[in-house]
Order: sequence, then structure tokens, then C-alpha cells
Amino acid sequence: MAIVSELKLEVRYYETDQMGIVHHSNYIRYYECGRCKLMEDIGFPHQRLEREGVMTAVVGVESRYHSPARFGDTLTVVTHLNRLPLAKLVFDTEIYNQDGVLLNNGRVTLGFISAETRKPVRCPEDLLGIIEPLFN
Amino acid sequence: MAIVSELKLEVRYYETDQMGIVHHSNYIRYYECGRCKLMEDIGFPHQRLEREGVMTAVVGVESRYHSPARFGDTLTVVTHLNRLPLAKLVFDTEIYNQDGVLLNNGRVTLGFISAETRKPVRCPEDLLGIIEPLFN
Amino acid sequence: MAIVSELKLEVRYYETDQMGIVHHSNYIRYYECGRCKLMEDIGFPHQRLEREGVMTAVVGVESRYHSPARFGDTLTVVTHLNRLPLAKLVFDTEIYNQDGVLLNNGRVTLGFISAETRKPVRCPEDLLGIIEPLFN
Amino acid sequence: MAIVSELKLEVRYYETDQMGIVHHSNYIRYYECGRCKLMEDIGFPHQRLEREGVMTAVVGVESRYHSPARFGDTLTVVTHLNRLPLAKLVFDTEIYNQDGVLLNNGRVTLGFISAETRKPVRCPEDLLGIIEPLFN
Repeated sequence: MAIVSELKLEVRYYETDQMGIVHHSNYIRYYECGRCKLMEDIGFPHQRLEREGVMTAVVGVESRYHSPARFGDTLTVVTHLNRLPLAKLVFDTEIYNQDGVLLNNGRVTLGFISAETRKPVRCPEDLLGIIEPLFN
Repeated sequence: MAIVSELKLEVRYYETDQMGIVHHSNYIRYYECGRCKLMEDIGFPHQRLEREGVMTAVVGVESRYHSPARFGDTLTVVTHLNRLPLAKLVFDTEIYNQDGVLLNNGRVTLGFISAETRKPVRCPEDLLGIIEPLFN
Repeated sequence: MAIVSELKLEVRYYETDQMGIVHHSNYIRYYECGRCKLMEDIGFPHQRLEREGVMTAVVGVESRYHSPARFGDTLTVVTHLNRLPLAKLVFDTEIYNQDGVLLNNGRVTLGFISAETRKPVRCPEDLLGIIEPLFN
Repeated sequence: MAIVSELKLEVRYYETDQMGIVHHSNYIRYYECGRCKLMEDIGFPHQRLEREGVMTAVVGVESRYHSPARFGDTLTVVTHLNRLPLAKLVFDTEIYNQDGVLLNNGRVTLGFISAETRKPVRCPEDLLGIIEPLFN
């Protein structure tokens, strides 16, 4: 009843800050890597959206930090698409380290907009056509 | 009944993405710039916290995106501290462009941790001593 | 015999890394902030270039690191345009801290390209018309 | 006569800028990913250096940009260590896209410093002991 995708990421040195941990803003970026991977996995990479003249605009982000990631860690970014993207695309993400510890989880909500007019549009039909069967 | 601080930021070219707007992860970074400014404004810059052996760990972020920032924009980051930081520090931030349009607002919640043990600690007394009078 | 521009920048917390200093990649970004400021100062902001259908592509970067910047530092980015941008735009930059210590210096070389064809083009005439008198 | 290491990286969306290409500052970060991989490959990951109380400070960067990377590209970062790191560690890097096109090449020079005193030190003996045989 959901589409789930996994991505492995090595923490990069420049992502750390002077507390010796990954700076909190990077998790928002990891979410993006995760949802790009999910879109690729279902055969609808972000570039295809852009070719169809559709862009996705982030409208909301929520993130909860449980334990810090550190340089040397290998992260697993687990991304879920739990509902049909009618007006909005909602991705839920959990990030684990190599020991299976949940470091962070969050939700990103995106709207579809026309690349030309920058106005909201509906989810492209062909994307729905790919996602709908995966939910059944 | 609140401490409010303002910071002006010029959008930097590298903060844009291929949609031609500021990438959404940067607002989380602008929040940080804003709360560092607030702490400076009240006479308790982040470095003083670190000198006292206390670090702040982000435990939650929420962000709502209303309108995009673009290269060339001058942003006003308005940061509010609306309550006494007993267990947690909670900052609410709004980001406006040069036309006064609200682009984004959000909340960041931080906990205090000991730099040595990395365990949660209370808000340092001298910080409370600065903040408490400002609320009355 | 040169165009010089100054920009003040506060080091941002997220720019630090786990060595407790500004990550070296950020100086390349400071250079960009500096040359955008120089272009603004002479009345030819980057947006005007883009409106004329011209983009600048970085073709080379050199950077030498003398002393680290830290969180809490206020940097002065001094950008020089030492020659007429015929085929290439060459910016030389020095970055100092609040104590006048030279932290870094470098050079960035850019080419002009057409936004449409992405092929090299010459420096726009109106930009040359602004720069040439400033050299005399 | 050289140590060579390869790393595959997917371009991340947030690494693009409003020209629709990877922002030039990111190559400096890719170099870092590449040399961390090389150090891992030879059995001396960066964390081991830090455990021994040694840090590496970037003293120089040179980078030449030949062709842009774009979102959707898979990059190959080829990192070379061409000489014994006596006073300095010198890494040469080339970055190719999935079509084998050379996008960028560069050199990063690092010095060893003591984590405690932040003064220059020699290359740790055990690192030399690993590298020297690989050159013969």
C-alpha cells in the first residue's frame, strides 16, 4: 500500500560542522536524494517531469532529529510515497545509520507547477498511471 | 512578550537551483543565521555558549514555503523567541523579500547538550538571566 | 588601473566543518559573492548580463589558503578586476578577517557564453563600455 | 608509479544552479570525496588520521572546468596520488561523466597539522609505511 525506495549515502566530510556532526540542513538534502531515487525506481525520473514542462515546488518540510550522523557513516535513506499524488506529492523519509539506528525522519510536501506559467497544475496523468497500479 | 531580531541577507548565486529559485534547503540555513543574530543581539552569542561547554542540538524543524526567493533578492529574516528556553529553545522565523512578501516561515526547536558528555542539559543560568527580564 | 570592490561577510555556522574552521570549498563561494558585488558596484549586476542573454561560465579557479576563518569572524572580500574582459573575465580576490589577516587569495577566470546556444561569445559591448573608462 | 582511486557520484539536484548546471564550487567538494575514497582504498581512512591527532589542512586548490555536469549525470571521480606525501599531500583529480567526457580536472595540496597545536607536522610514519610500497 505504499511505494518504498532505499538509497545508500556516505556522509561527506564537508557536510559536517564544528560540532563534529552532520549539519542539520543536510538531512533536507538527503530527503531530496531519496525522493529522486524513488522516482527513478518507478520509472519516472525527475528529468521526465521537467521534459513534460512540470516542476515540483516544495511547500512544506518537517524534520525530527533523533541522533547525529558523523563522517564515516553510511546512511540508508528510506523514502515512502504513501498516497496518490493528486494535488500534492507527500514523501515520508527515514534515515538510518549503518547500525540500523534511526537518525532522522521527516516529511516533504510538494506541489506540481507548470514550468511555463509557474502556476499550480495537477499531477501529470502519465505519472498517476504509473503510481496508481503500484498502490493496488 | 517576545524577543525579535532582524537580519538582512542577500541571496547568493550558488543558493539557486536549476528551477531558477533558491533551493528549499537554504531556508533552514537562513533560520540558523537568524537565530545566531538574535543571540548576538541579546548579548549571548553562540560562541559564549560553546565557551561554557554547552552546545545546541536541533531536534525539530518545520518549514512552510509560500513564494520563492531569487538571486538578486534581499531577504529579511525575522526571528522570534516567544518563550523561556527551559528544556528547549524554540525559534520562529519569517523570511520576507525586499517587497515585504512573506516567502517562508518556520520553527526550529533545539535542545541544550553538554559539549563533553553530549547528554541533554538545562539552559545555562546566565542565559536565562539574560532572557527572563526581556520577557517582562 | 583596476576596479576594486569590498564586501563584508559574516561566517555562517553551517560553513564550518568538523575541524572547527570554515570548509575550504566556501572560499570559492565567497569569491562569487565578491565578484557579484563588484558587478553591482559598477552598475552591471549579474541579472543584467542574464537579461542580455549572456551567461558567465567558470573556466578556472585557483585558491591559496593561508589561515583559517572561524565562526564569529567577519570577513572582508576584496575583489579586483585588473584587466579588460575581452575573451575572459579574470577576478582576483583576497579574503581578510576582522584583524586584517589575509586568510585566502585566489583567482577565478570566466568565459562569456550565450544563454541560448551555450557557445562562447565576446564580452557584451555595453559591459565593455562601462569597464573601459574605469581603467583610465 | 601512482595510487589511483575511482568513485562514482550521482549529481544531486541541490548541486545545480540557475544556469541549469552543477555549480562550480561543488567540484572542489567532489575532489574531497575522491581523496577520502583513495585514503579508504589504501586502508588509511581519514578517521584514522584524526585518531592519531593529525589533521589535513588544504593549502591550495586549482581547478579547470571543461564541460558542465548536469542533474541526472553519473560522475566518475578519478583521484591520483603521484608522489610521496613528505611535507605535503598532493592529489590530482579528473572528473568524467557517464559518456567518458572529461568535465573537470584539478589539484588539491594539503599539509599535515597537529590537531592539538594546529602547527604543521610531518606525514605520520604509518601512513608513509602504507604509501611507500604502493609506489614501487
